[in-house]
Amino acid sequence: MTDFTLSCPIPIADYPTVQLAHGGGGRLMHQLIGKMFGPAFSNPLLDQAHDGAVFAVNAGRLAMSTDSFVVRPIFFPGGDIGSLAVHGTVNDLAMCGARPRYLSAGFILEEGLPMTDLWRVVQSMAAAAEAAGVQLVTGDTKVVDRGKGDGIYINTTGIGVIEHDLIIAPTQVQPGDAILVNGDLGRHGIAIMAVREGLEFESAIESDSASVAGAVMRLLDAGIEIHCLRDMTRGGLASSLVEIAQTSGRRIAIDERRVPVRRDVRGACEILGLDPLYVANEGRFVAFVAAQDAARALSILQGHELGQGAAVIGAVGQETDGLVTMKSTIGATRIVDMLSGEQLPRIC
Amino acid sequence: MTDFTLSCPIPIADYPTVQLAHGGGGRLMHQLIGKMFGPAFSNPLLDQAHDGAVFAVNAGRLAMSTDSFVVRPIFFPGGDIGSLAVHGTVNDLAMCGARPRYLSAGFILEEGLPMTDLWRVVQSMAAAAEAAGVQLVTGDTKVVDRGKGDGIYINTTGIGVIEHDLIIAPTQVQPGDAILVNGDLGRHGIAIMAVREGLEFESAIESDSASVAGAVMRLLDAGIEIHCLRDMTRGGLASSLVEIAQTSGRRIAIDERRVPVRRDVRGACEILGLDPLYVANEGRFVAFVAAQDAARALSILQGHELGQGAAVIGAVGQETDGLVTMKSTIGATRIVDMLSGEQLPRIC
Repeated sequence: MTDFTLSCPIPIADYPTVQLAHGGGGRLMHQLIGKMFGPAFSNPLLDQAHDGAVFAVNAGRLAMSTDSFVVRPIFFPGGDIGSLAVHGTVNDLAMCGARPRYLSAGFILEEGLPMTDLWRVVQSMAAAAEAAGVQLVTGDTKVVDRGKGDGIYINTTGIGVIEHDLIIAPTQVQPGDAILVNGDLGRHGIAIMAVREGLEFESAIESDSASVAGAVMRLLDAGIEIHCLRDMTRGGLASSLVEIAQTSGRRIAIDERRVPVRRDVRGACEILGLDPLYVANEGRFVAFVAAQDAARALSILQGHELGQGAAVIGAVGQETDGLVTMKSTIGATRIVDMLSGEQLPRIC
Repeated sequence: MTDFTLSCPIPIADYPTVQLAHGGGGRLMHQLIGKMFGPAFSNPLLDQAHDGAVFAVNAGRLAMSTDSFVVRPIFFPGGDIGSLAVHGTVNDLAMCGARPRYLSAGFILEEGLPMTDLWRVVQSMAAAAEAAGVQLVTGDTKVVDRGKGDGIYINTTGIGVIEHDLIIAPTQVQPGDAILVNGDLGRHGIAIMAVREGLEFESAIESDSASVAGAVMRLLDAGIEIHCLRDMTRGGLASSLVEIAQTSGRRIAIDERRVPVRRDVRGACEILGLDPLYVANEGRFVAFVAAQDAARALSILQGHELGQGAAVIGAVGQETDGLVTMKSTIGATRIVDMLSGEQLPRIC
């Protein structure tokens, strides 16, 4: 494992942990920004070192999305709060059909956070941003007193550029639309829960946390008639479908046998008493595409790193009752609803 | 005082406080968004109810800025964390010379936060956004367990449109530039500290928290040659000037006698052992304008609600040493530096 102590740009001997003064607007805050955040995320826009970033845009449509990340623990198999904070917002932009371009980052640090943990998170964030093709252009750091946070919370807000003429929204969903997912479900939630519950599996279940923007751009570039996209985060596939059914007023019918869930994830769900349809993902989305484009969309997804396990899981019906139905493995059909509470608090 | 229990759109009898499930992605979260956030902030972009907001822009320059707000207490004389979260980001955009247009809001709520407190904050935010002419177009809600937050933290990220050809940045500061502030300093910090320390004054000192975008737009519309703008938040006037001096490499010289500080604020600073130059403001900015425009800029500011107490406090010198000097009330000149820590933690 990497020793983050050695590379940490803030001398650990002087500041082993984050202090209130690191958020106070004085010298320590400027040192943290100047030595750690600045170099890690460096790009011409961030380097302006102004109250905000200024960039030029062409005339057209932009997408804007925000997410705060409070996941516990902050490090988990397959990722950490830093990479997650990039993927979450990048994916929300992709779900608007936008190419992610600019990110802001707001850190709320708890007094006492080990400086090496912060450094590890920052490096992970920077790597995830580079991989996703986005620039972190502006940021903010606050420190709260011990016992008033949980190590680190991160907000990211993103701006993406829409380079096509489609309207991608629940309102565009049409009868006959094919419903695709880009891979197996439930790994992020199970990876987190396994750490929290101290569960051990034969091989570690890693979070699916990843940017799906590349896969979505490939569908758009190929001219696939996408009607709606939604990433399956909190509340999982079920909640995403219920939201879209309710907003569009359309009937959504899926087939449980077609929903890809890995055997180890299914087993872990049984141990934990969870339904994989409701478990959070961080690199999975559902796409509603015009029926005639379904096969081509599937093939494009399966040819992309983030879509190898893609599947068509159902279709939009003629009914206008806003319900989600699922044909189960034994052939019975039932209505899928939203959970009233949450299965998994602080999963993202 | 308004009874927020009566108007609260979430039935207090059912949910007197925020619960973990309000951030879980299920029914309770959708109820909170649908009944409270949605109607309070309603506008066509937010009402898209998508993973992000999509809006059209003209070709040109945009500004983007982010800020997290962790102020304690969340209600204080002259404002609260909701209005502050709008003003802080709107002002950062204005400091880029941009007209604030779109805001995102990320809420991190602590389990157990009284629902009426949340409602009061949301209403205050909505009113501040309307007054500042910005739309809240996308949002996110997370709930953390009791003891892992402090009631409510809010991140806002804003997008503004730059409608002129000036470059407004520390690098543009020129010898001879006049340095203006838009009013008396230190009220926000003192208002917060007075509540925390239980101090009572003859009349309450209210925070200066406000959007200064209107005042800045008036300067720009009048064609004032603005070189640099900076809001004087954490670290106050002194830190803002030191930042600009260091980034620009210019000498900044101010005259303490010209720096407007109210008598009651000065008195409170003496009691608390604070220097008003370092105390945070949330509706005050410093402007560097070309010498020939100084008198006109001052007159424009003084004619605006947010600039009645404006003053020219100094000028940029010929030296290229990046220092800030101040001529004191007794005539001596000293170097102004950044504080190494913070005077006032969690002031914004």
